[in-house]
Amino acid sequence: MPLSSRPVILDGDPGHDDAINILLACSNPELEVLGVTTTYGNVGLNRTTQNALIVRELIGATFPIYPGADRPLIAERLSAEAVHGESGLDGPDLPVPRRPAETLHAAQFIIESVRSRPGEITLLPTGPLTNLALAFRLAPDILPLIREIVWMGGSTDTGNWTPAAEFNALCDPHAAQIVFESGVPITMFGLNVTHQAIANPARVAAFRQLGTRVGEFTAVLLEFFAEHHRLRYGWDGGALHDPMTAAYLLAPELFAVRPMRVDIDITTGPSAGRTHCDVWNVTGQAPNADVAMQVDADGFFALLVERLAGYR
Amino acid sequence: MPLSSRPVILDGDPGHDDAINILLACSNPELEVLGVTTTYGNVGLNRTTQNALIVRELIGATFPIYPGADRPLIAERLSAEAVHGESGLDGPDLPVPRRPAETLHAAQFIIESVRSRPGEITLLPTGPLTNLALAFRLAPDILPLIREIVWMGGSTDTGNWTPAAEFNALCDPHAAQIVFESGVPITMFGLNVTHQAIANPARVAAFRQLGTRVGEFTAVLLEFFAEHHRLRYGWDGGALHDPMTAAYLLAPELFAVRPMRVDIDITTGPSAGRTHCDVWNVTGQAPNADVAMQVDADGFFALLVERLAGYR
Amino acid sequence: MPLSSRPVILDGDPGHDDAINILLACSNPELEVLGVTTTYGNVGLNRTTQNALIVRELIGATFPIYPGADRPLIAERLSAEAVHGESGLDGPDLPVPRRPAETLHAAQFIIESVRSRPGEITLLPTGPLTNLALAFRLAPDILPLIREIVWMGGSTDTGNWTPAAEFNALCDPHAAQIVFESGVPITMFGLNVTHQAIANPARVAAFRQLGTRVGEFTAVLLEFFAEHHRLRYGWDGGALHDPMTAAYLLAPELFAVRPMRVDIDITTGPSAGRTHCDVWNVTGQAPNADVAMQVDADGFFALLVERLAGYR
Amino acid sequence: MPLSSRPVILDGDPGHDDAINILLACSNPELEVLGVTTTYGNVGLNRTTQNALIVRELIGATFPIYPGADRPLIAERLSAEAVHGESGLDGPDLPVPRRPAETLHAAQFIIESVRSRPGEITLLPTGPLTNLALAFRLAPDILPLIREIVWMGGSTDTGNWTPAAEFNALCDPHAAQIVFESGVPITMFGLNVTHQAIANPARVAAFRQLGTRVGEFTAVLLEFFAEHHRLRYGWDGGALHDPMTAAYLLAPELFAVRPMRVDIDITTGPSAGRTHCDVWNVTGQAPNADVAMQVDADGFFALLVERLAGYR
Repeated sequence: MPLSSRPVILDGDPGHDDAINILLACSNPELEVLGVTTTYGNVGLNRTTQNALIVRELIGATFPIYPGADRPLIAERLSAEAVHGESGLDGPDLPVPRRPAETLHAAQFIIESVRSRPGEITLLPTGPLTNLALAFRLAPDILPLIREIVWMGGSTDTGNWTPAAEFNALCDPHAAQIVFESGVPITMFGLNVTHQAIANPARVAAFRQLGTRVGEFTAVLLEFFAEHHRLRYGWDGGALHDPMTAAYLLAPELFAVRPMRVDIDITTGPSAGRTHCDVWNVTGQAPNADVAMQVDADGFFALLVERLAGYR
Repeated sequence: MPLSSRPVILDGDPGHDDAINILLACSNPELEVLGVTTTYGNVGLNRTTQNALIVRELIGATFPIYPGADRPLIAERLSAEAVHGESGLDGPDLPVPRRPAETLHAAQFIIESVRSRPGEITLLPTGPLTNLALAFRLAPDILPLIREIVWMGGSTDTGNWTPAAEFNALCDPHAAQIVFESGVPITMFGLNVTHQAIANPARVAAFRQLGTRVGEFTAVLLEFFAEHHRLRYGWDGGALHDPMTAAYLLAPELFAVRPMRVDIDITTGPSAGRTHCDVWNVTGQAPNADVAMQVDADGFFALLVERLAGYR
Repeated sequence: MPLSSRPVILDGDPGHDDAINILLACSNPELEVLGVTTTYGNVGLNRTTQNALIVRELIGATFPIYPGADRPLIAERLSAEAVHGESGLDGPDLPVPRRPAETLHAAQFIIESVRSRPGEITLLPTGPLTNLALAFRLAPDILPLIREIVWMGGSTDTGNWTPAAEFNALCDPHAAQIVFESGVPITMFGLNVTHQAIANPARVAAFRQLGTRVGEFTAVLLEFFAEHHRLRYGWDGGALHDPMTAAYLLAPELFAVRPMRVDIDITTGPSAGRTHCDVWNVTGQAPNADVAMQVDADGFFALLVERLAGYR
Repeated sequence: MPLSSRPVILDGDPGHDDAINILLACSNPELEVLGVTTTYGNVGLNRTTQNALIVRELIGATFPIYPGADRPLIAERLSAEAVHGESGLDGPDLPVPRRPAETLHAAQFIIESVRSRPGEITLLPTGPLTNLALAFRLAPDILPLIREIVWMGGSTDTGNWTPAAEFNALCDPHAAQIVFESGVPITMFGLNVTHQAIANPARVAAFRQLGTRVGEFTAVLLEFFAEHHRLRYGWDGGALHDPMTAAYLLAPELFAVRPMRVDIDITTGPSAGRTHCDVWNVTGQAPNADVAMQVDADGFFALLVERLAGYR
């Protein structure tokens, strides 16, 4: 591990693209994966935790896994079996994990980790933000000690679960608002940018051509994931959402971000869960997030293939 | 007037781009302008009515002008002097109108007109929808008798007055919701498409080169209007919003529209006034509007220049 | 008619208690009933208009009847057949009205009446406030010309249609908010006071003992109306809501009112339609309404019997 | 301690009436006070924790004290210095506490306590419900293991901080909704019942006549607390809110409660924080709380004097 290795905690609801984000984050020495915390989201907490265990098993990694929230703070629980299949990771043959998850709650793990390495840790949430929100309300003292949050969620334009809202934001709008009001530096990768990175057949083939178990696993995940996007949007592949968070730490030059004010709609109206992004600064409010606006999609997929090639 | 002439009522809050829409609508025999109804909006009702009188005077037209609502149904009144100047039509030298406005209320004029020509009349609102909403609630019998509504307002993506909302929609979200739930066929021209038609210096020059009073008037209006857009968006001209409504009747082939469900956010949250456009049909709801998604901007400006050339 | 006769317009959705309010208002020379305007509410507009015609027929009165709104401004339409029966006036044998309703819209009648007698007219709405709201938005000039509004609706404590909201307020919260923000003097008779005036069997008997057609009609109405109140509240009669409005003009000493700020909840949450009454002035806001807090119930029923005795 | 001693955790924001609730709960063997958890509320968390320490010192008790939330889940933080004075316990001379608070978070203490004594523990919250909400979301497994919650907060009729909302409910409406939706049995003592128990001068005198330090302390607290109620309501004493929770466990026969559905308004409208109590079951929903409707005020004060007399 190089001197400059950056400690991260991955928080998510794997999930096809969360799984690939774990693969990417663990594939290289620049990131030190302190642990993976899980949450309900794409499927229930038991499934997402199991899926994290499976991915860890697949790559023989050793990071600890901490289950967290099994429901949103306030909102009704949604789920996304329609996109991710019954297991949340439908598609590939899945190894049987041999090590169990930890018993400490995800929020507690985040609190203790941040306190023990003040100013160092970057959080990479790729699901509903409930675990972070619980940690922030239980231990407000950690807020100034977090280096940065890089989140996949929200959108500057249209949603994917309602016309207004992206799934991760809609799952727990109140948690998202807690996080965006926390004062911690945030970079947001919303649908507006992830929809620029479509895993079309040529890009999927590049993973398969690695000729490795991880390459094949990734290819099959992407093929399964593509189906929903074909039906909904008429695209020739799935949008590769979550791995943008780890990719941003590894190669920020692939992305154009813009600072702006972001609030979350916590009403019960049709715009519930919308990430209210002040793209044109019409409110004059100071920014509280960097929002990714553009991605070099070819560069992004090239990075993924190159890094996943490291798994033998 | 050709046999095929289409009767229209223009409803708006002139306003620079509303004024150009009146010029366009009156410039040709395909549209029969039954009247112009005015509303508060860009500036107060007295000003917008005065501005309609001025435009009528400028072109020597004879259509009657009916003042309507001076405030929204429920919301607090906004105004847009910052964009349109004190008069709502700052920029050019303005003629002094010799004929006054009518005394009948705009909503009553709409009601009586529609009842007298059932199935024929197209409404072209380019401001807050308060007049239409009042007419629809006073006389629900006219709903099936209106041929079509073509509105400039809303947005499928970001707003211009708040991050969520476009000015016309935000002025009176409740009125907009009444109109979108009315069952009358609606075509919506939102910011997502009007921001594709920038009146840059070359396009402005084409109006000036007409060498007519109307051409010069239009050029000066556009130059004044450009200033706000330069400051806000960094563009080299203003977005020419309102004239898309008349242009759509004259040359629908210039526009790509998509049917979808549109609702208006009438909460008091940050998304108040948002036109909630189900672009990807994630709700599965039946469409209630055709939403313009793209414009042939060069064709649109060419149409405007060609038609306004008719004024001597 | 005495010199001091006070011109009133009754606006309502008869309805059992609305009907009795018409009887009371027409029973005496102190009030000059200029007209009755009708609205959807307890039942649909056609029924409520028919019921107004029936009551007029019953007493041989000559006031004109103007149908108005058939639906709320924004909210979904509710109805109260469960309380008032299919016809809205179930119970007594009903005469067949010989004269029809007028064609002028209720809101227009209100506007024209107020303009023609500036400062004189009192409005007595006993249903949803949609007609008043339409008139106020169509003709803001009439606001300072209205003498007073006396409304049955709302509640300082619990509702009757939801835990938060009284039926008339809930039917059209937006209209109610328009009226309460209008600046016109308002006195409100909500459930908190109308639930103090129960038409128990002894009180019903007093109407029957008049030995007149109107007395019998009233007794039968009250008996029908009692049923719902027995089931819901366990009371031995119905609360006599609407006639408090006319009674207040005739005998204000029967009521204790308190000035306070009242706003209407127009959210879509569980408190939608609540009349938000600042009983203890915790907000420090200036009052916009007099809210009735107590009634001398025996005096109120005595007044009713005494006045209705005038019908032979 | 008798065999039947009932284990309780007091959660609150002392505060004058919270302090008296602690005195009452600790005054007798029927209740086993496992600990006191503190929250922001009447004043900030540091002050409320200090005040709990002071009360413990005053009576020489040994229960542990756990500080918890310093802010609401989502809402802006309110505070009530206007009622409780700068310290939150203005009025009496206060002893200097010698023992500090614990470091474990209040929510963790609740979680661990409930897990260790499943089915036994009653929670007595008398402030914002943030600590309970955090515990419930961190550890949903404890929900079926809690015996009962007895809360002072909310109102079936009017509020005290806004016209709609009582202070404890308004401080954190989202937390309150989490608690009321938890499925744990709840008894609620709202303003509708606490306003029936006014600590008038005669009742205050009874505490003073105990001739003890605790009696005098209580009398002075009540005298300070009375001032706000005199100004706001014109009463001759303060409403003794919080001690009803412990009193209910000791002498339930003093109270009439009614089962009903209670939800919390979490909109951002004027009714935010209202406890939406379905007193008349107009929704037909199953009850989720017992709501106190009446108190035998003389019996309640007699109980307090009798129990506090035990402190020498």
